[in-house]
Amino acid sequence: MPLLVVGSVGLDSVETPHGKVKEVLGGSAIYFSWAANFFTPVRLVGVVGRDFPKEYRHLLHKKDIDISGLAELEGKTFRWKGLYQGNMHSAVTLSVELNVFAQYEPSVPANFRDSRFVFLANGLPSLQMKVLEQMKRPEFVAADTMNHWITEKRSELLEVLKRIDALILNDEEARQLTGEHNLVKAAKALQRLGPRNVIIKKGEHGSLLASQNGFFMIPGYPTEHVKDPTGAGDSFAGGIMGYLTKKGAVTTENLREAMVYGTILASFNVEDFSIHRFQQITLADIEQRRRAFETMVRF
Amino acid sequence: MPLLVVGSVGLDSVETPHGKVKEVLGGSAIYFSWAANFFTPVRLVGVVGRDFPKEYRHLLHKKDIDISGLAELEGKTFRWKGLYQGNMHSAVTLSVELNVFAQYEPSVPANFRDSRFVFLANGLPSLQMKVLEQMKRPEFVAADTMNHWITEKRSELLEVLKRIDALILNDEEARQLTGEHNLVKAAKALQRLGPRNVIIKKGEHGSLLASQNGFFMIPGYPTEHVKDPTGAGDSFAGGIMGYLTKKGAVTTENLREAMVYGTILASFNVEDFSIHRFQQITLADIEQRRRAFETMVRF
Repeated sequence: MPLLVVGSVGLDSVETPHGKVKEVLGGSAIYFSWAANFFTPVRLVGVVGRDFPKEYRHLLHKKDIDISGLAELEGKTFRWKGLYQGNMHSAVTLSVELNVFAQYEPSVPANFRDSRFVFLANGLPSLQMKVLEQMKRPEFVAADTMNHWITEKRSELLEVLKRIDALILNDEEARQLTGEHNLVKAAKALQRLGPRNVIIKKGEHGSLLASQNGFFMIPGYPTEHVKDPTGAGDSFAGGIMGYLTKKGAVTTENLREAMVYGTILASFNVEDFSIHRFQQITLADIEQRRRAFETMVRF
Repeated sequence: MPLLVVGSVGLDSVETPHGKVKEVLGGSAIYFSWAANFFTPVRLVGVVGRDFPKEYRHLLHKKDIDISGLAELEGKTFRWKGLYQGNMHSAVTLSVELNVFAQYEPSVPANFRDSRFVFLANGLPSLQMKVLEQMKRPEFVAADTMNHWITEKRSELLEVLKRIDALILNDEEARQLTGEHNLVKAAKALQRLGPRNVIIKKGEHGSLLASQNGFFMIPGYPTEHVKDPTGAGDSFAGGIMGYLTKKGAVTTENLREAMVYGTILASFNVEDFSIHRFQQITLADIEQRRRAFETMVRF
């Protein structure tokens, strides 16, 4: 029951009140893959430059992530420099170097095209559409987006929304895309644009799902030591899609449970830079935190 | 198992994007009493002026709220004028007239002093303390506070904290009082200041409880039609304290269930101005919404 992700692979330099790292492994496809891989094998489609460190490639090999869709182009790897201050709610982007990402058009390898579960990480909507056109009738497609595409590529984005089963985006993006401040109204408006399932991320406040069977709401895990929020959203999506792929069927029950696992994966991710925290944990740690979380929300 | 509340009774003039009302019944003790009264009789201690409308007095009589502790002083009733704009997250106070509230010192009637459950609504910490000194060993005392007292009356507030069982405050107040941005850390820091139970309100994002048995987190009810947020926090506290008083014992299970009811009461309150929505509903409506809420958070 393979899971495909198309997204960015990059080298991140991040500073937060709790430390600083330079050119560490990052990018949406990386966080997503690592989180999802606790549950299922992952097929990754993305691009790096000639300078992509061998050690990072080895790292991905060690996990059950198929990187035969990771193109290597002439040029440098995508780089992002970000700074989190104070409450670390959002990053200040200090610099972005698209590098090889600028001319990249995702090509899904022939043996990946039968993937039944697909995640289109945040990216140019026209490229998200090109990926969809290469797929053979996937069962469940989820996509992320961002403020920039909502304003600059709205019509292309609206076309993508008609083709996907789930939209995963944050609260501000949901408001921006619909013009509705109230998230209940925003979620319903987003459903009317196409996706049966709308998942709105609210950072530390948790997330909500609008599905055909009504609403589901889940608080965030009360993480005390947030070191670096980078990748939290993609880890959340990775947990969701990884769990759903493992279960093989998108039922209401599975979707809710998937959001619980997404919440747990995101909570681990923010405890360290890059994918460092994921490298220290096993599925047993995830299950343990899931049980702890359950005791915190039951009544 | 009587429940006592000491707080403000006033005439509110409120404008929101959804309408406008003039000199309607308001004040922390009003919202609290009305919400709590769905579960238990309430004893109210507060003050009004000679101009307090008879119709409002009758309104309280019709409910099972004992207003023999509602002093009437020479002068005008407390008045508040507020404006909510845009997302209605917080009110702009256009004017406050303390009137009789300025010289008021709460006196708890002799037959109220045995109340086992007590809520000290937001107010001058030294007056909250004076109320406590009049009580005969209450079983469970909860208090609210606000930014103004945190900065201006900090030492008096810290004395109150040592004497109460539960502090109910919003996220920004929790951060301000502790200097901790992270709400998990803030809640723990507040517990160290005295109250075994700390309940942090996060508006539409729900609330969290830090108790001796760990954390409990609950999302907000997804209210689609918020007409006026005034009194949401006091309705929440009223639901909590009313339910606990009805149960008669403060167990972890009861505290969690109480927060569910607090959430439901607050969600009704914001659907109309003043206590108008409360006047239209019964306990059956509350139970129905509670069941709907439960289906939205179960996994």
